[in-house]
Amino acid sequence: MPIRQSDCWILTGYPEGMPNDATFRRESRPVPPAGEGEVLLETLYLSVDPYMRGRMSPVKSYVAPLQPGDVIGGEVVAQVVESRDARFVAGDLVLAPLGWCTAGVLSGAALQKLSLPAGRASLALGALGMPGLTAYFGLLDVGRPRPGETVLVSGAAGAVGSIVGQIARLMGCRAVGVAGSEEKVRWLTEELGFDAALNYKAHEDLREALAPLCPSGVDVYFDNVGGTVSDAVLGLINLRARVAICGQIAQYNAKNPPRGTRPFATLLVRRARAEGFIVFDFKERFPEAQRRLADWVKEGRLKVRETVVEGFENAPKAFLGLFSGENTGKMVVRVR
Amino acid sequence: MPIRQSDCWILTGYPEGMPNDATFRRESRPVPPAGEGEVLLETLYLSVDPYMRGRMSPVKSYVAPLQPGDVIGGEVVAQVVESRDARFVAGDLVLAPLGWCTAGVLSGAALQKLSLPAGRASLALGALGMPGLTAYFGLLDVGRPRPGETVLVSGAAGAVGSIVGQIARLMGCRAVGVAGSEEKVRWLTEELGFDAALNYKAHEDLREALAPLCPSGVDVYFDNVGGTVSDAVLGLINLRARVAICGQIAQYNAKNPPRGTRPFATLLVRRARAEGFIVFDFKERFPEAQRRLADWVKEGRLKVRETVVEGFENAPKAFLGLFSGENTGKMVVRVR
Repeated sequence: MPIRQSDCWILTGYPEGMPNDATFRRESRPVPPAGEGEVLLETLYLSVDPYMRGRMSPVKSYVAPLQPGDVIGGEVVAQVVESRDARFVAGDLVLAPLGWCTAGVLSGAALQKLSLPAGRASLALGALGMPGLTAYFGLLDVGRPRPGETVLVSGAAGAVGSIVGQIARLMGCRAVGVAGSEEKVRWLTEELGFDAALNYKAHEDLREALAPLCPSGVDVYFDNVGGTVSDAVLGLINLRARVAICGQIAQYNAKNPPRGTRPFATLLVRRARAEGFIVFDFKERFPEAQRRLADWVKEGRLKVRETVVEGFENAPKAFLGLFSGENTGKMVVRVR
Repeated sequence: MPIRQSDCWILTGYPEGMPNDATFRRESRPVPPAGEGEVLLETLYLSVDPYMRGRMSPVKSYVAPLQPGDVIGGEVVAQVVESRDARFVAGDLVLAPLGWCTAGVLSGAALQKLSLPAGRASLALGALGMPGLTAYFGLLDVGRPRPGETVLVSGAAGAVGSIVGQIARLMGCRAVGVAGSEEKVRWLTEELGFDAALNYKAHEDLREALAPLCPSGVDVYFDNVGGTVSDAVLGLINLRARVAICGQIAQYNAKNPPRGTRPFATLLVRRARAEGFIVFDFKERFPEAQRRLADWVKEGRLKVRETVVEGFENAPKAFLGLFSGENTGKMVVRVR
């Protein structure tokens, strides 16, 4: 039976500072019939990611801003309901740029067929999707760790950070994580195999607290967070250290350009490199990385945990929870 | 006639903030006879450079700190008075790590013979020496400009900056300079061939003032200065821009770690790279670079100006003048 309506979450306007419930409006939108080459989809899981905050602002970033009235963009795991593209049949699971909607019609060219079992399909939004690829290329290609080096990752218990530390271990590095609760710290060290981790909220002088966890200093800093956590880590970087700037979640909701300790003098004295990157710069190498990530997951060498929020109605709440660290591992919303 | 005494400038203690006259003490020190393999030298020119400020601090930097009571270190152009090293004869001009002294004895192994005529010998402290090499490797190897790109250099009228902009032009780039006076701006644009330059002291909103000078944005930022000048420039960098961090002279005399706008979010959004470097990292390629720099000078494609301060007694004054921008081009002290 064709689906005629989709529930969607709409951006009401650009939030100043932290978004809140009023930033989002739920709306029913008509779903057109699938035309030639198009596919009718029903969402199973939708993704909430910190980068989405960047699109809720009129300022040009590395992704185009949303306009007020737009559906919140993003990838979903969806099931094909009806297909007019020969490559898909009803029941197929796909990765689709459908945004925060329960259903919709997209061109088959925009879809990626998933070979994951339905129970594991949400991995395509996490360890085997954009966050996993971000960890992979950011660490290996920007951070370029060598065996024996120390890799420190901030936001270590997040979708990206938890994979960064595990890949660092697979590369023969010492992996140190900074996270936001004692429970996350235990997860990182006891389950994921991080060599050390620390709850930044429990320490006044973070640099002093981190120093004994990094007895040989820090060679690669994978930065998801920015702010005072980064100040502390930069105090520990070694000669020729590399800083892979992946995210600055501590600043995404700032109303004014955030001020803090200037880092260039440290980069100079340590002859270190800090480099921003985006996963799409590595697009042509996605298949290679996805194969390796999938193998590691299959072999149990890459452990994955998700924070699953139940119900489409809770998508904004899940998203807002990213900024208070309510997720351990990837945060996804189960829609159906 | 052998020289038995040398006049030297001594570090009295570590200055807090800006050094001043009391930071330095003049002292006569005995000169030993030259032993086997050693050379007795008399200083013609001594060098004052911003990096020396870093050594007047107990904090480990990329060069070891001086101790109170030490002679201020640095390179000089000297003449050989007496040689017990077969490679040198009296009258030879050499580059020597003699520090702020009028004479001294050094191992011949520490000396580099100069083939420059006496009247041009000070070039070995500037365009053909450490500052020229710093410009060369910092721009070409760290900044990696491509023809048609825009290179912006801060401290543009200094020993390093004035060469950076000229090499950028030789590489087919647009060269834009930020300097500290209208006279320097005229020198950069009218004599050195910079495409544009600007006196940062004349503008409230530096970013706004710089924008029209960089109509295609900034691809390479060669940073000698740091602070608010860098804040302004970072607002103009392009996707995949490179920041070569060479110096942070605006901060060398700060009493506390300087605070300002955090730059990592900009590096992230622009997928840009900021990298500190030191010229000695490129040591094995010095001959190649010195040959090219010398050729450019000879052909008149690299123009050189020096600010020559007369008299050994004025070495501290010359050094302090670096921080108020009293030099145009390389600052040297003529000792004899």
